[in-house]
Amino acid sequence: MKILTILGSSRKDGNTEFLTSKAIKNIDHTTIRLSDYHIKPITDLRHSKTGFSPVDDDYEKLLEQFLNHDIIIFSTPIYWFGMSGQMKVFIDRWSQYLRDERYDFKRKLSRQKAYVITTGGTDPKLTGLPLIQQFGHIFDFVGMTFEDYIIGQAVKPGEIQADQSALKKAEEWNEYFKNL
Amino acid sequence: MKILTILGSSRKDGNTEFLTSKAIKNIDHTTIRLSDYHIKPITDLRHSKTGFSPVDDDYEKLLEQFLNHDIIIFSTPIYWFGMSGQMKVFIDRWSQYLRDERYDFKRKLSRQKAYVITTGGTDPKLTGLPLIQQFGHIFDFVGMTFEDYIIGQAVKPGEIQADQSALKKAEEWNEYFKNL
Amino acid sequence: MKILTILGSSRKDGNTEFLTSKAIKNIDHTTIRLSDYHIKPITDLRHSKTGFSPVDDDYEKLLEQFLNHDIIIFSTPIYWFGMSGQMKVFIDRWSQYLRDERYDFKRKLSRQKAYVITTGGTDPKLTGLPLIQQFGHIFDFVGMTFEDYIIGQAVKPGEIQADQSALKKAEEWNEYFKNL
Amino acid sequence: MKILTILGSSRKDGNTEFLTSKAIKNIDHTTIRLSDYHIKPITDLRHSKTGFSPVDDDYEKLLEQFLNHDIIIFSTPIYWFGMSGQMKVFIDRWSQYLRDERYDFKRKLSRQKAYVITTGGTDPKLTGLPLIQQFGHIFDFVGMTFEDYIIGQAVKPGEIQADQSALKKAEEWNEYFKNL
Repeated sequence: MKILTILGSSRKDGNTEFLTSKAIKNIDHTTIRLSDYHIKPITDLRHSKTGFSPVDDDYEKLLEQFLNHDIIIFSTPIYWFGMSGQMKVFIDRWSQYLRDERYDFKRKLSRQKAYVITTGGTDPKLTGLPLIQQFGHIFDFVGMTFEDYIIGQAVKPGEIQADQSALKKAEEWNEYFKNL
Repeated sequence: MKILTILGSSRKDGNTEFLTSKAIKNIDHTTIRLSDYHIKPITDLRHSKTGFSPVDDDYEKLLEQFLNHDIIIFSTPIYWFGMSGQMKVFIDRWSQYLRDERYDFKRKLSRQKAYVITTGGTDPKLTGLPLIQQFGHIFDFVGMTFEDYIIGQAVKPGEIQADQSALKKAEEWNEYFKNL
Repeated sequence: MKILTILGSSRKDGNTEFLTSKAIKNIDHTTIRLSDYHIKPITDLRHSKTGFSPVDDDYEKLLEQFLNHDIIIFSTPIYWFGMSGQMKVFIDRWSQYLRDERYDFKRKLSRQKAYVITTGGTDPKLTGLPLIQQFGHIFDFVGMTFEDYIIGQAVKPGEIQADQSALKKAEEWNEYFKNL
Repeated sequence: MKILTILGSSRKDGNTEFLTSKAIKNIDHTTIRLSDYHIKPITDLRHSKTGFSPVDDDYEKLLEQFLNHDIIIFSTPIYWFGMSGQMKVFIDRWSQYLRDERYDFKRKLSRQKAYVITTGGTDPKLTGLPLIQQFGHIFDFVGMTFEDYIIGQAVKPGEIQADQSALKKAEEWNEYFKNL
């Protein structure tokens, strides 16, 4: 089982990343930090005559990695009660590759297992629920299994260390991943 | 009452835009089509020593317009069960300007009235609800009044014309705006 | 197409009932006012050896009517951000009859079309959304088609008459039902 | 800190009760099993001239206990993607006592801390979210602090013992309650 973490934060060493590092501690894995790459927002050409055209950015490099893993951990801070713009832009582009015959996109995703790690400051265990529901619809649409999610409470760097409940859940995941 | 529509689609003349045009037909208004501008995703520097630094893109141009209107219509297609990445990137940057002393950001937003128009294809009147809830939390956070929303059902260009219920609601808004 | 309205309010002539009467004006239909009947909360005996036993109340009388209609309008005020206890007690008992061989419960429900009318006072177009999502899951579970919903804003008797948008939608439904 | 658990299940020794017993193991507390009492659904007389009238059932007995505790654990199985009818009927009656001058209802609730324990079988960590959101709105309305929630996955008696994550969270709560 190959594990990939996709980090959607625009900040290094943030709270979401801390929780994620707990979950995959001492586990072989790949990390994609979206802010390290140039990814353009989708241009919706589904209904144009010519369909989608090649985009000059880093997306396809990431795509190969993405499709090549079995377990995907989507790690995003809660920005404005949703996933970060960076992660949304990444996911929006799926619409293009669902239709790209060079990739076996839909079949590959339908075999992946999805995990979500998110942190926020404004009562995230409630206000983060629409985001969890959104991920639920996304994974359902592509057939990924939504295994579990962690919602941590934290704003300033390091604050997540006070959310014992979130930390413990990340450790549980870590135990589970070790035994895969 | 000055009306601004913010279009989050990556496609011109789409279904969301059609509904929006119904709502503001023959009404004086300003339109921002986000895909016409270069807007960078936020880099979260809230907790860095120096704070946010200037960003070389079109954001501040749009910001002046945004702050200068009383009624904001957020028009976004449902992409992956949420607002478009373009619109999310636009909203994420609010975090920067909430803290920018050159703008009276928070006070101005707290006087604005917000409307949301969105369309989607996969049972949007249910699967679009997390998006409406997210907008609810966003507007609540900045003190904007969430006046109303329209969720239309449509995927292909023109399909929205079959959603009589959404069209009628856009016409109701139009009547209301006329009498402001 | 036989239409049934199920009224979950504990109060006669309330706002939800007013909207419902608009929707079915001059349309042949049956009405069940739940508060007119004695309905016991479910006793969950799914996992007992003997299974469910007969319950001494009015439920089965209502059940025959319920199963014998094609379009069901669930009309409930928003009580504490959910359906009324009366309506919840009515729906909970489905668990019993799903397993009762005397009724063709599951197959019949899977052919029904569901509509929801609800009204509330505390920002119902947002705080009523979990209720709509709950109905979505309920109908999905039994295979009913969730056709549409109306969320009206009103607390005191008669207030619904100020919610033009809800009234118009009820009239739209009325037009539609007339042409069935 | 006086702890009260309110059990909404119609079944003894179910999965929700098992989780709850873990959370309050060796902790002094009071338990109300709603199915042991006769509680009538509310009759909404808020807008009648005479207001609410006395109801001949067990409610006021429970009410005194309810108001006399600091921490309330609402434990309900997920029935039809919501709280049990028994628990909904219990909460609906709050509308009556909010207005009853014999009780200091609103002030007392505004000092209480709320916890929710719920279990369900059909993907409860997603389909249970509207219920959590509903509780969020309820507690917000009366000013109770929504401390935390556990969503367990289980249908048949005993199945909850396989949900390690829910069990561990109940144990965390137990540690926390011990140190109050």
